[in-house]
Amino acid sequence: MTTTIADLARALNGRLWGDGSLSVTGAAEAGQAGDGQIALATTPAYAGRLAPGGMALLAEGSDPEALGLKAAILVGRPRLAMAGLTRAFDPGPGIAAGIHPSAVIAPDAEIGADAAIGPFVVIGARVRIGAGARIASHVSIGPDVVIGRDALIHAGARIAHGVTIGDRVILHSGAVIGGDGFSFVTPEKSGVEEIRETLGERRQIHQQHWTRIHSLGGVELGDDVEVGANSTLDRGTIRATRIGRGTKIDSQVQVGHNVVVGEDCLLCGLVGIAGSSRIGNRVVLGGQVGVSDNIFVGDDVIAGGATKIFTNAPAGRVLLGSPAVKMETHVEATKNIRRLPRLYAQVAELRETVKKLMEKDGRD
Amino acid sequence: MTTTIADLARALNGRLWGDGSLSVTGAAEAGQAGDGQIALATTPAYAGRLAPGGMALLAEGSDPEALGLKAAILVGRPRLAMAGLTRAFDPGPGIAAGIHPSAVIAPDAEIGADAAIGPFVVIGARVRIGAGARIASHVSIGPDVVIGRDALIHAGARIAHGVTIGDRVILHSGAVIGGDGFSFVTPEKSGVEEIRETLGERRQIHQQHWTRIHSLGGVELGDDVEVGANSTLDRGTIRATRIGRGTKIDSQVQVGHNVVVGEDCLLCGLVGIAGSSRIGNRVVLGGQVGVSDNIFVGDDVIAGGATKIFTNAPAGRVLLGSPAVKMETHVEATKNIRRLPRLYAQVAELRETVKKLMEKDGRD
Amino acid sequence: MTTTIADLARALNGRLWGDGSLSVTGAAEAGQAGDGQIALATTPAYAGRLAPGGMALLAEGSDPEALGLKAAILVGRPRLAMAGLTRAFDPGPGIAAGIHPSAVIAPDAEIGADAAIGPFVVIGARVRIGAGARIASHVSIGPDVVIGRDALIHAGARIAHGVTIGDRVILHSGAVIGGDGFSFVTPEKSGVEEIRETLGERRQIHQQHWTRIHSLGGVELGDDVEVGANSTLDRGTIRATRIGRGTKIDSQVQVGHNVVVGEDCLLCGLVGIAGSSRIGNRVVLGGQVGVSDNIFVGDDVIAGGATKIFTNAPAGRVLLGSPAVKMETHVEATKNIRRLPRLYAQVAELRETVKKLMEKDGRD
Repeated sequence: MTTTIADLARALNGRLWGDGSLSVTGAAEAGQAGDGQIALATTPAYAGRLAPGGMALLAEGSDPEALGLKAAILVGRPRLAMAGLTRAFDPGPGIAAGIHPSAVIAPDAEIGADAAIGPFVVIGARVRIGAGARIASHVSIGPDVVIGRDALIHAGARIAHGVTIGDRVILHSGAVIGGDGFSFVTPEKSGVEEIRETLGERRQIHQQHWTRIHSLGGVELGDDVEVGANSTLDRGTIRATRIGRGTKIDSQVQVGHNVVVGEDCLLCGLVGIAGSSRIGNRVVLGGQVGVSDNIFVGDDVIAGGATKIFTNAPAGRVLLGSPAVKMETHVEATKNIRRLPRLYAQVAELRETVKKLMEKDGRD
Repeated sequence: MTTTIADLARALNGRLWGDGSLSVTGAAEAGQAGDGQIALATTPAYAGRLAPGGMALLAEGSDPEALGLKAAILVGRPRLAMAGLTRAFDPGPGIAAGIHPSAVIAPDAEIGADAAIGPFVVIGARVRIGAGARIASHVSIGPDVVIGRDALIHAGARIAHGVTIGDRVILHSGAVIGGDGFSFVTPEKSGVEEIRETLGERRQIHQQHWTRIHSLGGVELGDDVEVGANSTLDRGTIRATRIGRGTKIDSQVQVGHNVVVGEDCLLCGLVGIAGSSRIGNRVVLGGQVGVSDNIFVGDDVIAGGATKIFTNAPAGRVLLGSPAVKMETHVEATKNIRRLPRLYAQVAELRETVKKLMEKDGRD
Repeated sequence: MTTTIADLARALNGRLWGDGSLSVTGAAEAGQAGDGQIALATTPAYAGRLAPGGMALLAEGSDPEALGLKAAILVGRPRLAMAGLTRAFDPGPGIAAGIHPSAVIAPDAEIGADAAIGPFVVIGARVRIGAGARIASHVSIGPDVVIGRDALIHAGARIAHGVTIGDRVILHSGAVIGGDGFSFVTPEKSGVEEIRETLGERRQIHQQHWTRIHSLGGVELGDDVEVGANSTLDRGTIRATRIGRGTKIDSQVQVGHNVVVGEDCLLCGLVGIAGSSRIGNRVVLGGQVGVSDNIFVGDDVIAGGATKIFTNAPAGRVLLGSPAVKMETHVEATKNIRRLPRLYAQVAELRETVKKLMEKDGRD
């Protein structure tokens, strides 16, 4: 895309400084910008690397004149401006318009206007795909799937039968939506059921095989959901597994059967949520966080990286550690563990002293 | 599928109550059942949501008459009945019968009777596929693979050369069976080899490149194994990596080269088992559990979510924590850490008191 | 492959013992070798399992005569010899020479001499693929990708637009190179931004939607990089995410946007590295290790399995635990926690004793 820096400033809700007629063809880091590229220099450290004579995106309060720029866009919240800027110059995955002749599409599937379907795509019976949706190569879509308008499905994503996907949803490569839940049962009570009741005690160990509980529920993704590469969202047992509108899921996240995730959440890479748990709205789970099955995580909970949540978490709580506790409790616990060598020494010394006092006392 | 509730009761080994001639076309959660759907109400809480006049699956001891039902199935172990019920109404992934014309199949591959092969499947030289197997779209099967009867391979699963798969095995989308093991060597001893011997001490750090150890062994999956979406089971170095009969593997599980997993195990989401470790029979590893390389995990071990097993675990043990310890030890350790602030205060107070005693003692 | 044991000894830089004319057609574990197979017996335990009359690979110092062998190769560093031996007998994934007619290749893509392209491969506009590269079935390659000489791309790997891949790189099945970074922003400051500044304190919770920051940077993989099955390397925001020459990445590893990994590193299974972090050269991260965003991990750091690195790690450090600390500190901390029950008992006893001393003191 090519634009003038004046137009770009308007699009970013920024303030233009300098020559608004300059053409912008792309963006680069400060010190890396070539001809036509606008440099990103939203902190003083980055601004220090700017070459004079160029264009830059700056935080309000910066002095483009002192930096020797020809033109600049000044913004109040640089990270927000980055969103607009990167959207403007993203070439996208390059999915050709129209339906590739190699695609295998069920006769009764409905493909919306202007939808693009790539090579080797398979679309099952009774599928409905919204207008403007883009389906990249090698995607498979099972029977009875519904996909909303302007969805973007990257190469090799897998959508199983009966899944419902909202408008503007993005699925990255290798994402699997609607695989069967991991749900098995033994004829008699299993060891896991037993230790959940006894908190670790086991009587006799039985030899038993696992029988499969099939997954009849589907998966429902709200509008504006994004699912990262190779993430897996399992279908529900009876009702659907559900991801609320606006929730963003990173790569390699596993969401178990029957899970309900609220709206506007962020689930970072390698997060695992076990079956039937419920996650509130605006919850943020850092990388490698784990959530046990059948628990509730309240609205606005934020869990730092590698936090393991075994029990219900009240709304608004900031969690860390394994098992998860309040951030301040975790920080104190870590400090207390680090100070243990001193404590051991103090107690040893105390015992010695008290022993002497006792001996003395005995002699008195 | 449509059945009468009397037939369904027989199939589930349940007791019929009421009008056995009613048709059942599907299942739903209590309070959600529409026409022809049997409601699941196996706990008192769920039973309270039942609309009168319908059908329900109930735990023995419930009173269908008091609930105002027309018909009901009463069962002793509801979770087991769920297995039969969901199997009855699972439409499955919708793989069409026969071999899709787009599939690329080596001329010397043997495809069993009634096997179904989907679009864009690739099947290599000398492959043998059992009768009744269903291979969904986009699956790739390398040379010399053997797949048993009635196996179900979901869309986009990858089976590398020389893998052997038993009867009724289920592989979910994106599962990769038989990728190369992660095995490298440096010309001289590497830093990792050094610290394993010295427990953390390092002499001189060498600059060395990694040389690849190739993986000549395959992977063997026993009968009735299930492998979840995007899980990866690496091939062995010389002999095969092996998963025993009846073991169920969840999504995004990584099993390293040469690993041997026993029979009837459950490996939950995001579990990682490093190279050459051996897992016994009926072992249950919760979500995000890790197992170090070259160790043994005994029969019937149960490890809770996020447990990290660094050393051999004896048979029957219930494990928690990182490093993994007996569940009761872990629960006590967690409690002990929570109580540390009080301990620190007590020791500080003791020191103060003893100091005074000492001073007094000096004065006496 | 068939060779004589004399030729094989030369290729492995080993010392031949016995009849060098014997044919070798493969390798097997000690006690498992059939006709023509060389048994691996590089430790005394394995040597004890050897059947007499065969061939073996032995560690220098072993006595092939006493073991009753016909021929043997003796080597100083058996693990290194394993690399050569397994390479010699690896049949590889069986990718047929030439370009399969079903492949969809952009007219302006450049395919190097002797490159092999499997069925159902899609290659985008302006792609350049080096000589001798092997691309297995179902691979998708976006526009403007460059792939080096003799690269090996396994079935179903995904390479997004603008990715650059060096010579001899190996990508395993399901690897996704160049998916979008996980980068979002809210109009006003988000809860995560707030608690990073306040260390856990939150004022008012706002309801806000996430706006996407697009990823304009690509991914660059140096020569001899290997990426395991279902691993995901996200593209950078403005500049490329980079993996240095010779670095090996295991299965199911997640590398975030803008991350820079140095040369000759090992990243084991299920490792997650969050956005914009930098990893030095020769770093080894064990299975399930996590690295927070925006930190530095110095050269030659070794982190044991499940270590969670939240802060910068200096060069050469050996790390364990969560939060990561020096290995010796972690070992001591674990020991200190295990000894807590005794400490609690000692302090309780001390309090009792001191109480008595105080009472006595009061009476005196």
